[in-house]
Amino acid sequence: MKLLRVGPPGRETPALLDEAGQLRDLSGVTDDLDPAFLATDGLARLAGISRHDLSPMDPTDLRIGPPLRPGKIVCIGLNYRDHAAETGAALPAEPVVFLKAADTVVGPDDPVLVPRGSTRTDWEVELAVVIGRKARYLPSAEAAMDCVAGYAISHDVSEREFQLDRGGQWDKGKSCETFNPLGPWLVTADEVPDPQDLRLRLWVNGVLRQDGTTKDMVFPVAEIVRYLSQFMVLYPGDVINTGTPAGVALGQPEPKPYLVAGDVVELEIDGLGRQRQTLAPA
Amino acid sequence: MKLLRVGPPGRETPALLDEAGQLRDLSGVTDDLDPAFLATDGLARLAGISRHDLSPMDPTDLRIGPPLRPGKIVCIGLNYRDHAAETGAALPAEPVVFLKAADTVVGPDDPVLVPRGSTRTDWEVELAVVIGRKARYLPSAEAAMDCVAGYAISHDVSEREFQLDRGGQWDKGKSCETFNPLGPWLVTADEVPDPQDLRLRLWVNGVLRQDGTTKDMVFPVAEIVRYLSQFMVLYPGDVINTGTPAGVALGQPEPKPYLVAGDVVELEIDGLGRQRQTLAPA
Repeated sequence: MKLLRVGPPGRETPALLDEAGQLRDLSGVTDDLDPAFLATDGLARLAGISRHDLSPMDPTDLRIGPPLRPGKIVCIGLNYRDHAAETGAALPAEPVVFLKAADTVVGPDDPVLVPRGSTRTDWEVELAVVIGRKARYLPSAEAAMDCVAGYAISHDVSEREFQLDRGGQWDKGKSCETFNPLGPWLVTADEVPDPQDLRLRLWVNGVLRQDGTTKDMVFPVAEIVRYLSQFMVLYPGDVINTGTPAGVALGQPEPKPYLVAGDVVELEIDGLGRQRQTLAPA
Repeated sequence: MKLLRVGPPGRETPALLDEAGQLRDLSGVTDDLDPAFLATDGLARLAGISRHDLSPMDPTDLRIGPPLRPGKIVCIGLNYRDHAAETGAALPAEPVVFLKAADTVVGPDDPVLVPRGSTRTDWEVELAVVIGRKARYLPSAEAAMDCVAGYAISHDVSEREFQLDRGGQWDKGKSCETFNPLGPWLVTADEVPDPQDLRLRLWVNGVLRQDGTTKDMVFPVAEIVRYLSQFMVLYPGDVINTGTPAGVALGQPEPKPYLVAGDVVELEIDGLGRQRQTLAPA
């Protein structure tokens, strides 16, 4: 299933994009796509409902919001071999973990704000994993995959000066307003047979900047979920940003092409749709 | 006002401890003490209600939960001069910022779980600041204080090996299950005339381990809120853990007295009440 949320920010309606490409209203089934929906077996309930019992919606002029209200967002750093190399970092021996404020999540085509005082706002296309079942001290990769509800495109926007040169931890450059476009869809795990065989691409003003594949992850999705569950509990509705392939501005020769207001960023992952954001001043 | 939430985990009832020490039921006024309550001027509404219109509650055998469901938790590292020194870290030139998963929050007297495989679980008494108004690019310390709803005791439990020796960012050792006891009360800002003149103490098995004052903060509350608002938006219901004074296990001579199952930790901050947790295996 492809699940999404449409309508004005903060007042989105849950919806489903059916097999024929028809948008259908889910507001009769659930108030929202959120941790509570996933925790109460909402996906199984949805799967049992005939598509024809869901009213069709007209997609014309309809804003697409983020496909769910996430719980927490956990991020994996330096998880692609080529990206670790381009940033001058050693390949991690175990996953590098940080958090991103869940309130940074916006729709896939919403504006992204360049923070005031920023000169190094950067892009990162990532595969987002959405947790469907509580994950706590999981014993194996198989147990980990049972906790995955689905996948989405995530744009882990980053401010490199705030992240790297302002003292302390990376989090400072990761949680700026609008810094996590998500969606357009939450694609359920049954429709993504191999999360380690997805092409990810990102363009800035039409120039292809990132072109990677999840085959190159240092730690694959199953290992990330198993590993994280040893350090924290993952709950339904939590999102994991699984890292970015090479091609970010930070990895380019000087002068590095950091984002400025007016730039247009487009992102695509096989089977997960496409995002398009215009940068604007905060 | 002293606000709290009482009852079984996940099904707490909002309550008020009135000026005479009587516990009163707030469930007729609000479903919960949460970001939505604070964002809709809930504190002002409460202040206008006569205490006698709120039913008294019997506190006998009543569990105290965390005093609110927080939005995000932002933490400030190395914010006391003596604590920076004991950990061998340089005094930060600007605030060190990291995030902690909000789902780690438990009640002030709930068990704290020692993570599986942990040998370096440590304590940290901290002053928590609860945000009451949206804070975004604040111009001054005065504007920052207008965004503070109140204060609480926060126990920023930390696993030092996970935090410092397992690769990457501190977050890995900060978001383990039950790692943020909060409360007993949210004390509104009007009852804390000077947040920079509060004594903080923490005992382990009756031995006083931390005895500091918020006078020794490197960055005071107003500056922390102003500073953070340049990097992220703070929303009503967000919590800031403002750092810990000297005396944590990490700062002790070998063998360092890290926490093990069965240990009892007690925390106190002037005017904000007292916490007491027993450690248990995860």
